[in-house]
Amino acid sequence: MKIAVDAMGGDYAPKEVVAGIEIARDRYPEVEFDLFGQNDKVKPLLNNAERIDLVQADEVIAMEDEPVRAIRRKKQSSIVLAAQAVRDGADDAFFSAGNTGAILAAGLLIIGRIKGIDRPGLTTTLPVINNPKQDQFLMLDVGANADSKPFNLYQYAILGKYYAQTVMGFDNPRIGLLNNGTEADKGDMAHRAVHDILGSAKDLNFIGNVESRELLNGAADVVVTDGFTGNAVLKNTEGTALSVLKLIKNSILEGSLTGKLGAAMLKPTFKNIQNKMDYSKYGGAVLLGVKAPVIKTHGSAKAETIANTIGQIKSMLENHSVDNVVSYFNDHSDEMAAMKADMQK
Amino acid sequence: MKIAVDAMGGDYAPKEVVAGIEIARDRYPEVEFDLFGQNDKVKPLLNNAERIDLVQADEVIAMEDEPVRAIRRKKQSSIVLAAQAVRDGADDAFFSAGNTGAILAAGLLIIGRIKGIDRPGLTTTLPVINNPKQDQFLMLDVGANADSKPFNLYQYAILGKYYAQTVMGFDNPRIGLLNNGTEADKGDMAHRAVHDILGSAKDLNFIGNVESRELLNGAADVVVTDGFTGNAVLKNTEGTALSVLKLIKNSILEGSLTGKLGAAMLKPTFKNIQNKMDYSKYGGAVLLGVKAPVIKTHGSAKAETIANTIGQIKSMLENHSVDNVVSYFNDHSDEMAAMKADMQK
Repeated sequence: MKIAVDAMGGDYAPKEVVAGIEIARDRYPEVEFDLFGQNDKVKPLLNNAERIDLVQADEVIAMEDEPVRAIRRKKQSSIVLAAQAVRDGADDAFFSAGNTGAILAAGLLIIGRIKGIDRPGLTTTLPVINNPKQDQFLMLDVGANADSKPFNLYQYAILGKYYAQTVMGFDNPRIGLLNNGTEADKGDMAHRAVHDILGSAKDLNFIGNVESRELLNGAADVVVTDGFTGNAVLKNTEGTALSVLKLIKNSILEGSLTGKLGAAMLKPTFKNIQNKMDYSKYGGAVLLGVKAPVIKTHGSAKAETIANTIGQIKSMLENHSVDNVVSYFNDHSDEMAAMKADMQK
Repeated sequence: MKIAVDAMGGDYAPKEVVAGIEIARDRYPEVEFDLFGQNDKVKPLLNNAERIDLVQADEVIAMEDEPVRAIRRKKQSSIVLAAQAVRDGADDAFFSAGNTGAILAAGLLIIGRIKGIDRPGLTTTLPVINNPKQDQFLMLDVGANADSKPFNLYQYAILGKYYAQTVMGFDNPRIGLLNNGTEADKGDMAHRAVHDILGSAKDLNFIGNVESRELLNGAADVVVTDGFTGNAVLKNTEGTALSVLKLIKNSILEGSLTGKLGAAMLKPTFKNIQNKMDYSKYGGAVLLGVKAPVIKTHGSAKAETIANTIGQIKSMLENHSVDNVVSYFNDHSDEMAAMKADMQK
């Protein structure tokens, strides 16, 4: 298996990307890499070129570039060339730590949607805490689409189910719909419609509505949401956790000597917590519903996180997570078309 | 000023409600109370009836009752009778710790909307942490309406501005729109439309989009959002903060002896943090846009929180927060009607 890597994306690119790929190369002997970037910058960073091919990309898409325009205009950028290599079959998956919008646009416009899928969804794995039975959960869409229709959320549920089963090891994952109450009649009209569809879908282990208050307690294995709400909740989880940790640190620093002593003793505990809350540890965000794995990791990711994300891609490829979805939508194309027509009435 | 109190609502009613009202009565000599409830239960709890009149209400609306049906059928409930007393002018404001949906329904259907306001919005005050310049912010709508239109969000901004100015003491409050990116073109179609309206509104200090990651850092003084997203973000903030605190406690308990020692030393710090994150301290949720203050505090509120919430109501009444809004919508009725018509084209 060969992975197309955008060497130029991310806050610490290309240095940390190259370092991460070297760790992954040493860790996964069966994986090969095409490293897309400006060779004069990338090559000096590479210690050992074994199973790593450098591919020259003259241009770089910056974090602040307008995504779709950047994809259309910067034809020689590392993101565009890497995505084209996946589309053309030279590589099996796409990885970047760069401009999220540009990565999504490259996935959609260059690699392309799986037949039968209306809107691919972006998914993130988040930690479950204080629950001995569950370690993590999956949420989608967390921002690929700001405007989603009920039919899109139904398809996110299927995409999430396959990912949770094949990559995360969940057996018949519990699908929950993020809503503002657990009762079936909660939410706006769109979410009430989604609740009905998911409730009658025979292939899904739908457990009903879940509230955002309960997500980190493991309310569901796969949390289905529209991209607008999902993005807000994801960023809120991150922001709140960081604020609480910072508040604790500041309170200790302003505190008494005993507080400071206590803090020193608690250092390993805090480290452990930050580690638990760091969802980049659980891998990158995956654009599900496109023809090959497209994975984006945090812009601030360093070498170790990048290597872990490569492990996640390897697992997607080994477990044929995309092929499973292609087969499902192929086998259910008539049903899916009928359902879509029915929902547009 | 006289406040209509639902003595039967909340997890610890009527005991903690009565105790809270007695604290408030002693603290605010200018406030009188009508206490609506089952007298045989309420009366034995009352130590001193000074400025507290008991009003018999045979029925109780339970937490699990379907709100609108309960308001329509339980005509002798404490919530219905208290709201009617406000509507009829016997009381100036309504307070309850009970069934949120029923309180909202009583506010809308019995007390009624201010002329010119399409949809009242529910607002909550949340803490700003790690920011020496700001202590709290206001967010609305946090769940009065699951389906909101851009015009409703524009009205929330006005309602929030007046509340922040007259009750919270903000001078020309910074209004932010909760969105999934700070750029003007972010979000779904509805939020892009709201951004345009708020940007051109001459009476608002609109600072643009704010992201949910930055709320607790004080990104805005008034955060405007649709009720679906606002509810999800509010519950997520609460859930994430609780989970992180619990994780810290568990990590310490499972930890070494030094960890436990450290924890003992840090106890005051943790207490301080829990206090800071406890948004019921900042008062109850206010239904803005109805003809009198309608305030709901947490179902789990105890006497001290209830007394604090009475202080908040007193401040709303003293500062004529409802009258200000009535005047504004009265003075701008033509403009508002034209804008609404324009947005429905």
